[in-house]
Amino acid sequence: MSANKLLNFVEAITRFLETDPNEELILSHGQTLLAELVASDDWLPDQFARPHPQYYQQYLLYADPLDRLSIVSFVWGPGQKTPVHDHLTWGLVGGLRGREREMTYAKQADGSYRVTGSGILLPGQTTAVSPGIGDVHSVANDLPDQSSISIHVYGRNIGRVHRHVFDEATGAEKPFVSGYASDVVPNLWS
Amino acid sequence: MSANKLLNFVEAITRFLETDPNEELILSHGQTLLAELVASDDWLPDQFARPHPQYYQQYLLYADPLDRLSIVSFVWGPGQKTPVHDHLTWGLVGGLRGREREMTYAKQADGSYRVTGSGILLPGQTTAVSPGIGDVHSVANDLPDQSSISIHVYGRNIGRVHRHVFDEATGAEKPFVSGYASDVVPNLWS
Ligand SMILES: [Fe+3]
Ligand SMILES: [Fe+3]
Ligand SMILES: [Mg+2]
Repeated sequence: MSANKLLNFVEAITRFLETDPNEELILSHGQTLLAELVASDDWLPDQFARPHPQYYQQYLLYADPLDRLSIVSFVWGPGQKTPVHDHLTWGLVGGLRGREREMTYAKQADGSYRVTGSGILLPGQTTAVSPGIGDVHSVANDLPDQSSISIHVYGRNIGRVHRHVFDEATGAEKPFVSGYASDVVPNLWS
Repeated sequence: MSANKLLNFVEAITRFLETDPNEELILSHGQTLLAELVASDDWLPDQFARPHPQYYQQYLLYADPLDRLSIVSFVWGPGQKTPVHDHLTWGLVGGLRGREREMTYAKQADGSYRVTGSGILLPGQTTAVSPGIGDVHSVANDLPDQSSISIHVYGRNIGRVHRHVFDEATGAEKPFVSGYASDVVPNLWS
């Protein structure tokens, strides 16, 4: 049933991570698993799909008891976007609803950040970030009139990671701990 | 901080279960870990401590991704009690608030169930059930005027186990799947 799709994904990625794969394998096979999850959009409870009028929302859906994994629903209202930021761990992103635009950045010799790429993420598509393959990006809702939602999977409890947002022009960085939008997560075991 | 006590318990019992202990060790060391958790009553979010006017409530607090463990808050209003029931897996019980009375039962040659013991569970105390040591019991709130709460830990996702309630006098059994009172669980990772 649709209600079990997220639990099935949790079980599959937990078993996969217990084989202690290297990052290259996590980024490839992890995207394969995530692509199965976001191949359908009938499983995310409404409570974890709600946009906020001002801010993009990060709803924790699941986190590992031993801090090896977190799964987050990102919900962007019309016009909302993230600052330029890093993750300091591997991250997988799967489009679930709407349309997102990702900009990737690389640090220049003068300290500023230069755009190195721009891509669209549609429902069912996946992408990845990591310190190894490129960890600095920004994500925007590419739709002017509706929400976009993507499902993110990280190699740590991303809501507690001490990371950074960057000023693109100057490269100035600010410390950043994202937290989560809700103090509850879905009961996948009902 | 108090908000992290449940996550600390989740991590400790997960690491312990990953050593693949036998049931005797689970019942003994598991109770030691659980006793630490229920030694204080400052960590259970109110949303998972609410009695229902008619029915005792079972709030899932955490479940393992590989189905090795579930943690449940049982909340009894005044006068509420469970039927005589089994679990079909090991279970640890720790008193958190109020006062509970547990009756244990053994099946007789004629099929009926006879009371073999009666005990009080106070905050900070722990007890256990299992098919090996005695799996059939009933639990009642022993207070006429306030709620009692205990924290239960089971070796499976207890809300989905196909188990039984019993008629004490005749031994007649009825199938029973408890489910959970809420479709969300606490976010321990904020
Ligand atoms: Fe990001
Ligand atoms: Fe019981
Ligand atoms: Mg494990």
